Amino acid sequence: MVNFNDVVNARDRIQKYISLTPLDFSMGLSDEKTKVYLKLECQQKQKAFKVRGALSKISSLTDEEKERGVIAVSSGNHGAGVSFASHLLGIKNAKVFVPETAPKAKVDKIKYYGAEIVQVGKNYDESHKTALEEMKKKNMTYIDSCSDVQLIGGQGTVGLEIMEQNPDIDTIIVPIGGGGLITGISVAAKHMNPNVKIIGVQTAACPAMVKSLEDDLLYEEFPSEKSICDALIGGVTEIPFKMAKKCIDHIFVVSEESIRKATKLLLTEEKVVSEPSGAVGVAALLDNPQYFAGKNVAIVISGGNLDKELMEKIILN
Amino acid sequence: MVNFNDVVNARDRIQKYISLTPLDFSMGLSDEKTKVYLKLECQQKQKAFKVRGALSKISSLTDEEKERGVIAVSSGNHGAGVSFASHLLGIKNAKVFVPETAPKAKVDKIKYYGAEIVQVGKNYDESHKTALEEMKKKNMTYIDSCSDVQLIGGQGTVGLEIMEQNPDIDTIIVPIGGGGLITGISVAAKHMNPNVKIIGVQTAACPAMVKSLEDDLLYEEFPSEKSICDALIGGVTEIPFKMAKKCIDHIFVVSEESIRKATKLLLTEEKVVSEPSGAVGVAALLDNPQYFAGKNVAIVISGGNLDKELMEKIILN
Repeated sequence: MVNFNDVVNARDRIQKYISLTPLDFSMGLSDEKTKVYLKLECQQKQKAFKVRGALSKISSLTDEEKERGVIAVSSGNHGAGVSFASHLLGIKNAKVFVPETAPKAKVDKIKYYGAEIVQVGKNYDESHKTALEEMKKKNMTYIDSCSDVQLIGGQGTVGLEIMEQNPDIDTIIVPIGGGGLITGISVAAKHMNPNVKIIGVQTAACPAMVKSLEDDLLYEEFPSEKSICDALIGGVTEIPFKMAKKCIDHIFVVSEESIRKATKLLLTEEKVVSEPSGAVGVAALLDNPQYFAGKNVAIVISGGNLDKELMEKIILN
Repeated sequence: MVNFNDVVNARDRIQKYISLTPLDFSMGLSDEKTKVYLKLECQQKQKAFKVRGALSKISSLTDEEKERGVIAVSSGNHGAGVSFASHLLGIKNAKVFVPETAPKAKVDKIKYYGAEIVQVGKNYDESHKTALEEMKKKNMTYIDSCSDVQLIGGQGTVGLEIMEQNPDIDTIIVPIGGGGLITGISVAAKHMNPNVKIIGVQTAACPAMVKSLEDDLLYEEFPSEKSICDALIGGVTEIPFKMAKKCIDHIFVVSEESIRKATKLLLTEEKVVSEPSGAVGVAALLDNPQYFAGKNVAIVISGGNLDKELMEKIILN
């Protein structure tokens, strides 16, 4: 499992490569009683927190492992993060597997920093299967997008920064996809102040962690309805599931409509470009004002890669 | 006049209050030969570089001066910056004068951090006149928005950061309003590397610095056509004008249409909320690709307070 030292050590390795993102006070979301701050990981390198985990994991490898290379499966922020981290850390052999259906814009972004793209399989699972075969054959290191101690240590640096930037924070709201981010943040923040509450948020289109905890079963795959939250779709992963009872105090499920509204509010009022997956924390706050009344709340805005067409639609509604 | 020590000393005083904003590489604006980086002062506290100057000036006052209080005239980023800085530095008596016509949203933002708003006069000049009378009567310190050594020293910390974040930068593009920002950045950057070129940008609606330099006359007032660049409208100020020949290598004038396109591109492609005044550097780059070919260019995106209605219009065009 992951502990505070994993986070501190991760920071030592990755600090010089990442931005210390702002924890900005929000006038608009705060009121007399409740103080709301936005942790703007949407302004991180590559516009998402994912570079932290990728850098943490890859920088923890031995020279021999680095030489043999790394492999990842993702057409999203994790794929871009692994390519970027490999570039910075001098990994010559970095392969990112994406499904045949991955959009060109996303593939180009991953390719930019030099990772080799392997476009294979009709969907994520098929792409993943081929990646694992390649990994074994070539003895490369697989960079998991969620369930990995070093990777979660890297994501946890977000929590470290929040508590250093404002020690009065008593509540942190975090989006849950695979669960790596909330786990890392919780390990860091609860070590620094055991009274901090960690609140997860999932989209109603895919409440995988909620169901996993209700049924006490790890749903590594989970059906999803149509969603604008690409990064929050799919199942839960092992380490985050095992640590959830200790790490997560409550999970809110928010509607796609609330997420649209939160994304628009961030853009037009807060002047912050957030992808819908990154805006779910604001949706949870707006849907449940009583729950957060009187608290000093930090909301993690986890990513800023808001698709252009979707931005237009959201602005117009 | 302003020198490098003024910038270094300003940083010592203000560093703990401001964000170290990213100097982010832009894939979209770069090509094989030209590398383009965005200095995101639109992600600074209060969404604009203006807090740097306000903090620098106010923190340089004697205890007695602080006790007597400060006064400023501005319904924009400077007013908000002075209110925010006064709050952080414990100034109890801070007054910001704004014209009677100032929009409520802007006034509310200034008021939020505790400055007293004095809404007086039909326009900026009338408001300014009353402010100066009040200042003399009460023996308060006037916080000029542009022509002040300590204030310009504060703005110069942007240049210090750029050259530290990437010592290979050889060209910096900076919006010119009153001229404080470009002067400070130039003092810092040219001290650190005398070969750095400093390129100013003005809107065609109000090319005050260009005309002042052409005619070798300080135009403190200058007529403006209709413009979406609130922060770049009006005349030039004394210190920036006197230092311009040493500080500014060239000035581009860009059309309002180019500025709209640049603001839209930043929003939809770069995922950066910039106000039009903050986007003029991108307009200059796009209008003059040959001029910047083969350079390592830093473009200062000076502010992010993009009005909601204007954002909608820009997205739709």
